[in-house]
Amino acid sequence: MREDELVAAIRRITGDGPGVVVGIGDDAAVLEPGSGEQVVTTDLLVQEVHFGTNVSARDLGMKAVAVNVSDIAAMGASPRWATLGLVIDPTADASWVVELVGGVKDACDEYALSLVGGDLSRGRSLTVSMTVGGEVAPGRAVLRSGARPGDRILVTGELGAAAGGLILEQRADASLLGSDWARELLRAQLRPVARVAEGLALAGGGATAMMDISDGLLLDLSRLCSASGVGARLDVDSVPVAGALLEFAGAAGVDALELALSGGEDYELLAAVPPGQAPVLAATFTERFGTGLLDIGEFVVGEGLCDAGGNALEPRGWDHLA
Amino acid sequence: MREDELVAAIRRITGDGPGVVVGIGDDAAVLEPGSGEQVVTTDLLVQEVHFGTNVSARDLGMKAVAVNVSDIAAMGASPRWATLGLVIDPTADASWVVELVGGVKDACDEYALSLVGGDLSRGRSLTVSMTVGGEVAPGRAVLRSGARPGDRILVTGELGAAAGGLILEQRADASLLGSDWARELLRAQLRPVARVAEGLALAGGGATAMMDISDGLLLDLSRLCSASGVGARLDVDSVPVAGALLEFAGAAGVDALELALSGGEDYELLAAVPPGQAPVLAATFTERFGTGLLDIGEFVVGEGLCDAGGNALEPRGWDHLA
Repeated sequence: MREDELVAAIRRITGDGPGVVVGIGDDAAVLEPGSGEQVVTTDLLVQEVHFGTNVSARDLGMKAVAVNVSDIAAMGASPRWATLGLVIDPTADASWVVELVGGVKDACDEYALSLVGGDLSRGRSLTVSMTVGGEVAPGRAVLRSGARPGDRILVTGELGAAAGGLILEQRADASLLGSDWARELLRAQLRPVARVAEGLALAGGGATAMMDISDGLLLDLSRLCSASGVGARLDVDSVPVAGALLEFAGAAGVDALELALSGGEDYELLAAVPPGQAPVLAATFTERFGTGLLDIGEFVVGEGLCDAGGNALEPRGWDHLA
Repeated sequence: MREDELVAAIRRITGDGPGVVVGIGDDAAVLEPGSGEQVVTTDLLVQEVHFGTNVSARDLGMKAVAVNVSDIAAMGASPRWATLGLVIDPTADASWVVELVGGVKDACDEYALSLVGGDLSRGRSLTVSMTVGGEVAPGRAVLRSGARPGDRILVTGELGAAAGGLILEQRADASLLGSDWARELLRAQLRPVARVAEGLALAGGGATAMMDISDGLLLDLSRLCSASGVGARLDVDSVPVAGALLEFAGAAGVDALELALSGGEDYELLAAVPPGQAPVLAATFTERFGTGLLDIGEFVVGEGLCDAGGNALEPRGWDHLA
């Protein structure tokens, strides 16, 4: 496989979307001027760290887009473009790369952004490094640092399913597969969904701080608290544990609540919202987006996390360097 | 080493430059609106493919910035921001990462851009994936596709030194080291310089097409010809062979001209310039930038490369997948 031939094949798949003056194939991509502030994020997916050896190229391509778009969504911004740095292992062939780019393209279409450039190399372990850029109206990006004591802690969707899917995959126990809940857990792991419309609604509805939950609720909530200089009292009983995970817990004895609290890769949004606005947002959220929005506690004066009874909660979760 | 502690250490080094609303540490960076079209590029540096095991962290960080900025320069654009995706091998410690980020920061300062975000992960082989964004006045980006028959082929600086440095490093022959020319070759390999001011001058001086020479003059010139739908007649005797490389050739029998024609990683600019403007640009170039600008041939009707005598030249160079 020659590099130039492969780049030409990739260009045929991806095309150039709206706002793209020059896409893949030149020294750099050229994009029309944006209408607001630029937002930009980079996320890595590394084999044996973020995914196993049996992942499909298409799933991997889609996931790389979703995890980056999730970071854009967490700013209350809209994604516009992506670049792809792809290190392929010596056994990968051109069709595998084209299939991965096909997954990237599918996900870019879903979230309305364009793949505009990138780089390819051989290497010892498969690595996907994606950068996604987006836009937000000036001064309207929702940071991690704006939560105030009294703000409610809101979370979209359900938690723990992706971590459950990872355990299910690692156990490789055929008797656990085949059910609807097993499929749902594996899907949560392989095909996360970025909450772009939900992020825009939370930003527009007055969120004072926001982030996506990628490394576990407790760890990410503790990061938001540190950035904002506040503490959090979490109503652990209100944390939305994924239904499929509860079924897995019943069948195989995993601790569903623990996975919902500290499992990674949920890509749900965690937001601080003033107490007056929180019920207004939550009331119509499921109807508007098909995704729940739950109140799981309150930001408080101080630092660190505690439960409703005041007992300290350890900020446990996923550390990519541990 | 904990991920959050390392990110905090990186934030202390990098700070936030002009135009950066939110830098490292949130879900995504936020940048002030640009004044023109956005330009964006991604380049990978992978251990055992792009560099050896004995590279210093600081050199690697500086090189990652330079090779990306070179792509921005080749559009006639100015760099503004960078993100860093860094996969570190299991033996790397926090001080190594901080040293690499120090190199990134040094190079960002040199080229007046800001490191605004990124991601870190463990992995089996050290990989640096950098994305750099820049700006160019609307409609003024210089693409690979604009060369016309009759345009002159211009090249900045001298060629082949980086490829010579790689060979020198691989030979590990102590008797060849220690001289000025050896230091110059190694430096060309480890510390390439991106031609930002030169790119702006070529764009302003009427260049119809431009790219940087990263994979060898012949291969990259053939790519520019393909994109423009033209051929090229190269005056091989005019190709600027690096002086240090000629000394290496004298001492160790390497083929200096061949390395200047097909060696990679020069990061000089290759431009098509109308015949009337070419001498005007070249006349004052060295004085303005301390870098030569040489006329090495002509774009012609047709396709492919030939020498001054009309003999076909094979577009040989560096393929990252071969």
